[in-house]
Amino acid sequence: MSSPPTAARRAATTGKAYPLPGHRVYNFGAGPAAFPLAVMEQAREAMVDFAGLGAGILEISHRSREFLALIEESDALLRELMDIPQDYRMLLAHGGGQLQFSMVPFNLIARKPARKALYVDTGVFASRAIEIAARYGYVHVPAHSRENNYDRIPAFHPDWLEPDASYLHITTNNTVMGTRWATIPDCGALPLVGDMTSEILSRAIDVRRFGLIYAGAQKNLAPPGLAVVIIRSDLIGHALPETPRLMNYGELAKDPHSLANTPTSLSVYMMRLMLGWVKEQGGVPAMERRAAERARLVYDEVDRSGGFYRPYARPEHRSTMNVTFTVSDPGLLERFVDEADQAGLYALKGHYARGGIRASMYNAMPTEGAKALADFMVEFQRRNG
Amino acid sequence: MSSPPTAARRAATTGKAYPLPGHRVYNFGAGPAAFPLAVMEQAREAMVDFAGLGAGILEISHRSREFLALIEESDALLRELMDIPQDYRMLLAHGGGQLQFSMVPFNLIARKPARKALYVDTGVFASRAIEIAARYGYVHVPAHSRENNYDRIPAFHPDWLEPDASYLHITTNNTVMGTRWATIPDCGALPLVGDMTSEILSRAIDVRRFGLIYAGAQKNLAPPGLAVVIIRSDLIGHALPETPRLMNYGELAKDPHSLANTPTSLSVYMMRLMLGWVKEQGGVPAMERRAAERARLVYDEVDRSGGFYRPYARPEHRSTMNVTFTVSDPGLLERFVDEADQAGLYALKGHYARGGIRASMYNAMPTEGAKALADFMVEFQRRNG
Repeated sequence: MSSPPTAARRAATTGKAYPLPGHRVYNFGAGPAAFPLAVMEQAREAMVDFAGLGAGILEISHRSREFLALIEESDALLRELMDIPQDYRMLLAHGGGQLQFSMVPFNLIARKPARKALYVDTGVFASRAIEIAARYGYVHVPAHSRENNYDRIPAFHPDWLEPDASYLHITTNNTVMGTRWATIPDCGALPLVGDMTSEILSRAIDVRRFGLIYAGAQKNLAPPGLAVVIIRSDLIGHALPETPRLMNYGELAKDPHSLANTPTSLSVYMMRLMLGWVKEQGGVPAMERRAAERARLVYDEVDRSGGFYRPYARPEHRSTMNVTFTVSDPGLLERFVDEADQAGLYALKGHYARGGIRASMYNAMPTEGAKALADFMVEFQRRNG
Repeated sequence: MSSPPTAARRAATTGKAYPLPGHRVYNFGAGPAAFPLAVMEQAREAMVDFAGLGAGILEISHRSREFLALIEESDALLRELMDIPQDYRMLLAHGGGQLQFSMVPFNLIARKPARKALYVDTGVFASRAIEIAARYGYVHVPAHSRENNYDRIPAFHPDWLEPDASYLHITTNNTVMGTRWATIPDCGALPLVGDMTSEILSRAIDVRRFGLIYAGAQKNLAPPGLAVVIIRSDLIGHALPETPRLMNYGELAKDPHSLANTPTSLSVYMMRLMLGWVKEQGGVPAMERRAAERARLVYDEVDRSGGFYRPYARPEHRSTMNVTFTVSDPGLLERFVDEADQAGLYALKGHYARGGIRASMYNAMPTEGAKALADFMVEFQRRNG
């Protein structure tokens, strides 16, 4: 997409171009993330009348047969898509990934008498998880990339695996920094806990490497207000006595649909739609291929810009979901973000903790969106380089 | 609504009648509750493109100017509708009313050295709040109506107000039992905490009587996954050290929009729409008048049925939101619920903890819905009495 044609398509009212049908922009927001239009249109229709019930999806009981079926179907689809073994449970929790920062230590840190947990610090959210876990026990950080401003993932070393620790926590994809664990470490008998909020269902992983995986829904799964927890059954039942009822995995697991109270119903419903969409599109392998292609399209322009654009993450640790870079001339940064927005490339501003530019391209982003951004980058450099 | 005309309108596919436009039933569900069609249609349109942004309401950043404006408008509207004094904050929390069962003691029970809280036990959710609070301190129950199967609210007595207690908790409306506190007690210097989940904005109350009011959104405010907390500012800042970050009122209050992380965006958006709708309809006085009228229409049929229907709550403690009764002949109960459903009167089955029939009629229920139920009751009695 070059600048003049999109400029011509700008809507007079908003001054914004809509490169997609239905007045839709390419949404590079880090989350809440965009949905495929087909999913969104289906959800829209369910608002007023779901399944011929005469009431919208938001209005029916979470104990109704129709709603329970959505949870059962999501459970089956997630198991199929991620190849989740039978001895793992899928639980639904409130509040997204960040409430898990408290839920994980509440439920797991007392598994062993030392009440110790290991956390690798690879960025903003990993740090916050550490700070929160430290309220419930002893947190040891075996490795971090702080002195490198988190531009990389520390190399795994088996020495990290202290035998008296209850678990090791990693943030598999770092949304703010745009880095990811290219290889998931093999922790043997020590349960590995993975925050996969910003990359679940975008790459093949071996669930058996983890004791617990959690993901806030608002990137690749569903609208905000929901977290999905995939937990090996033997890790349920170690909660501290002060654990709030709705944050206790054991309480959630008591109900076969993990409905300890009214769930965020729209998120549960749209997760069902998204999982069906991922399957139709070819499952996780297709998502992984497309994600790699999108990231490559954008990083190629960064790498061949001769320094006009500067990448943030080390090449071998680059995320395929969050591509982070900046314009070398800081005076051009705001112009880049604004002109991209006018061209229908929405929400490219980096997180305030890192600055620069961030292109978040979750599963719903079409390849054309990455191409449009790459084209815009070439054109922007031509005009300002 | 008599039986033959609605039967004639049954949709062939579902066997259900749709008494409302747009294939909508009268939804008597206890929550998630129905929305006014106008609100639902507006939300539906915002799903794919909100405010001309080219992205849906679920897809935009919660830090965007447009989203922050929704929170500011909701704050202003709620203050206006409930006449909330300036020294009270409105906070938004995850997880609905039940997560507040943990949040309230986390934040308030240590206000005084005795670490003691008073809870009046008036039903299923009051009991659950007690059970949960007892994990964080000493809970004293000054009064309860257990031996009367919760068919009434205990009469307030100033002796309840122990001076070393941190707060007194009441459930102002008991969804399962269909009772409510007709008068909000005056607790003087002791902070009164009110769970108003199932009746907020349906009756005029003096906010100054409370130190804290909370309400899960899913009845009168918004779709599930959100709780609104109205708290007197001096009660912020007493949280126990083990309080999860997202459950600490002080953490939520740090941000002017109480965005400690990504909120349940649809619920926040739809709360803005609902608050606007309540104002347009004439505010809380109009809601209160309509609620009284709806409850009267249904209770009148119960009371004049000569024992065919049997009310549950004592007359002076009847809720206007949840009308509870049963059919005296237990063999007719299932038929009542099924035939009502066929006639487009949805979700009348009582809570499993109490059984019988429950007609939940929140702010969105039109008077015609209560009339339709009353007519159905007369007709059902004629055929089965």
